[in-house]
Order: sequence, then structure tokens, then C-alpha cells
Amino acid sequence: MTDKPATPRRRGAARTEELLQVTLDLAVEVGYAGLSIEAVARRAGVGKHTIYRRWSSMAELLLDALSRAWTSDLDYRDTGDVRADLREQFLRSAPALSSPPIGPVYRAVIAEAQSDAALRATLHERFLVTVEQRTLERITLAQSTGELVDGVDLEFAAEVLCGTLYYRALLTDRPIDEAAVDGLLEMFMAAYGAAG
Amino acid sequence: MTDKPATPRRRGAARTEELLQVTLDLAVEVGYAGLSIEAVARRAGVGKHTIYRRWSSMAELLLDALSRAWTSDLDYRDTGDVRADLREQFLRSAPALSSPPIGPVYRAVIAEAQSDAALRATLHERFLVTVEQRTLERITLAQSTGELVDGVDLEFAAEVLCGTLYYRALLTDRPIDEAAVDGLLEMFMAAYGAAG
Repeated sequence: MTDKPATPRRRGAARTEELLQVTLDLAVEVGYAGLSIEAVARRAGVGKHTIYRRWSSMAELLLDALSRAWTSDLDYRDTGDVRADLREQFLRSAPALSSPPIGPVYRAVIAEAQSDAALRATLHERFLVTVEQRTLERITLAQSTGELVDGVDLEFAAEVLCGTLYYRALLTDRPIDEAAVDGLLEMFMAAYGAAG
Repeated sequence: MTDKPATPRRRGAARTEELLQVTLDLAVEVGYAGLSIEAVARRAGVGKHTIYRRWSSMAELLLDALSRAWTSDLDYRDTGDVRADLREQFLRSAPALSSPPIGPVYRAVIAEAQSDAALRATLHERFLVTVEQRTLERITLAQSTGELVDGVDLEFAAEVLCGTLYYRALLTDRPIDEAAVDGLLEMFMAAYGAAG
């Protein structure tokens, strides 16, 4: 009994992982414009239905592949100093936006999303919400430990933190450097840091 | 002498205005991908050198055309209440990002800029800097009248205000509505509003 095949469920999870990796590899090779469900299926040696059972569109599949690749960059530390932890994560994760494999593919998705409202919604739901959510969790923790004041809308603050950095990365030629991150955090802490 | 032709300088300014209008009209008709210096020259009935004397690339010309069309939307009032004036301008100008003629053309430029670092720099220099600059002027005025605290980096605050709204417009399917603008301004005033 020890060498029985993996259960369908385990095979399913491994297959999902494999498809995400194939998608990212292919995206890096051929770019967003060259991607298709068919090309991913061919490369992975599966039928298209195997993919469509998991994702309803190429965009969803690619955004999940990007999320998976970027997951570790999005983790915040908890050292008890929210300003330092935000600073460390912003400076660590920002280069991914401009470096391979994620950077160029991600920019291509964002470009495509400008003329495709459905893709824009998917981009937000499958990827950016995760970015904002992890930030919100870290600052909510800081609120619970008294580093930030009570009774303020931290959900919007998380959007301001993420949104400002995205704006700089995508629409300007300014770097996300220490000065930028410190400027942003100075405003955030001035707004919501607990006095004293 | 009253019917002498306009001076070369006046003709130059009028010609510049005309070329900007032709560019915007053409962009709305054929989209960013269909634009070229040659097409603008043909439509305007001028030689290409007439355009190249003023702009070094199609991107510069289009961004100036967008700037000109959007100028009035970018004006801030000065009622003596900086929060109210920012709120009014944000809610008034935001729809331009999603409505013709500016919206679709502008989104196409942003899309193209994702794979073109030079265009991204031009986009920032010729357009977004103006947006940030006008915001900076309005909040600097508020600092001088005592509505905002002294000794803080308002240049970065202007980027946060503009950047958050751009992020929402370009990368999410959330609207720039009263709740969003109020959330942003609450954080801004909590950070830099003069107490009491």
C-alpha cells in the first residue's frame, strides 16, 4: 500500500503548481501577447480542459502564476516596529516590479488592462488585493499593539501605501528608493502613528 | 498696415495650437497605435519638419495635446479651505481619466509606456509633473496660510495624493468617488493639517 499513486486531490494540487510554473516560464519566453491557454496546455502536455477546470481565462491563470512567484516578496516581518517592517518590505519587493521574470510580464498585463476593463478587474482581484491585504494585516496588527491610533480607516491607508508605490513604478521614471519609501512612511506615521 | 499678415511668432503660436488640436482629434479617431507624425502632418496640411521643429517625438506631441485639453480640469480653487478645494478638484477631474476624448487615448499612452521606458519618462515630464505641480502649489499655499503644518515634505505629499488616485483609476475597478477622495484627504489632513 505504500506505493499507491497519489490521491486525485494531491495530484490536482501538484498539477496546479506545475501549470503555474509552466505559465510563468512561457510568459517570460514569449511575452504576454504570445500566451494562450492552448500554448500552456501544449507545453504542459495536458488537455485544455485541464486548465479551464481551474482558470476561466488566460489572464486569471497568469495573474495566479505571478502571485505565486511573488508570494515570498510580499511577506511582512513583525519586529514590533511597523515603520521599519513596512520600510523593509517595500524596499525588498519593489525591484520585482522592474526585474525579470516578474517585471516585464507584469507590466505587459498592466498595459493590456488599459484597454480591457475585465482584465483590469481580474488584475485587481487576483493580485493587487493580495498586496493590499497583506499590508492591511500588518498595519492592523500595529493598531492592535498600540503603534497606530484607533478608529481610523486602515483599509484606505493600505491602498494609499501600495498605490503610491505603484504609481511611481509604473508612471514615472523615479526610483522606489529609500527617500521615496521614507517620504511615504513619514506621511503615514504622521497621520496614524500613536503619539509619544 | 492693418491687414498685414500675422507676425511669424503669432502664426507660430496659432500653428502650435492647431497641431495640438489635430493630434487630439486624430488620436480619438484612430487610437494611439494609429498615430504618427506623418499622419498629423497630412491632416494639418503641413510638412513633417513643421512638427519636428516643435516636438521631437509623437509621444511628446500627444502628451502636450492631452495636457492642453485637460488644463481646465486641473485648476484648483482657492476658497481658503484646502480640504474642500482638493476634494472639489479630484472629483471634477477624475472622470476625464475614464471618458472620451482624453480617457481612452490617455490609457493607450500609459499602456504603451509599460514597454517603453523613454515614453514613460516623457509621460511623467510632459504631463504628470504638471498634475503634481498644481497640487503642490495648492497645498503649499495652504501651508503659508497656516492650514497645514510647517516643515514637512509637501512635494512627496503631492505625489501621494495624485498617485493614489491614478492607482485606483488605472489598476483597480474601484471608482474615484466621494468615499475614496474623503479617505485620501482624511489621511492627508491627519498627517499634515494644523491642529485646532
